[in-house]
Amino acid sequence: MIKARVTVTLKNGVLDPQGKAIGHALSGLGFDGVGSVRQGKVFDIEIEGDDRAAAEADLKAMCDKLLANTVIEDYSVTLI
Amino acid sequence: MIKARVTVTLKNGVLDPQGKAIGHALSGLGFDGVGSVRQGKVFDIEIEGDDRAAAEADLKAMCDKLLANTVIEDYSVTLI
Repeated sequence: MIKARVTVTLKNGVLDPQGKAIGHALSGLGFDGVGSVRQGKVFDIEIEGDDRAAAEADLKAMCDKLLANTVIEDYSVTLI
Repeated sequence: MIKARVTVTLKNGVLDPQGKAIGHALSGLGFDGVGSVRQGKVFDIEIEGDDRAAAEADLKAMCDKLLANTVIEDYSVTLI
């Protein structure tokens, strides 16, 4: 069993109104000095088997096909 | 300027129908051997100043107050 964490974040330059709203909310709660806030997604995925190279290749294919919109998002795959 | 990544994930035992749907979709796309899938959130936050200890304390307070629902979610703060 291989555990992996996939992190999907917006590419630089892509507007993130959700992140901006969170930043405003944090300032409203009294947190000073909050600069940019950008929100992304994380997926904790378990893959059966022990072939780490194959699992990593599979995970990248999953990102390309389903988990990330590669037009506007970057992803990173980390095996744990 | 301090950059930090906050990761918010569901606690173990909390049902994650969204993650389950993603797992089913991955199986439907032909990815065999996908076990559990759990989805979480990630926030990339910039904090002004150079006091890393204060920034980390602030970030934890932000999680407790806004970014995470600590009844059902865990969070981790990593300064980059």
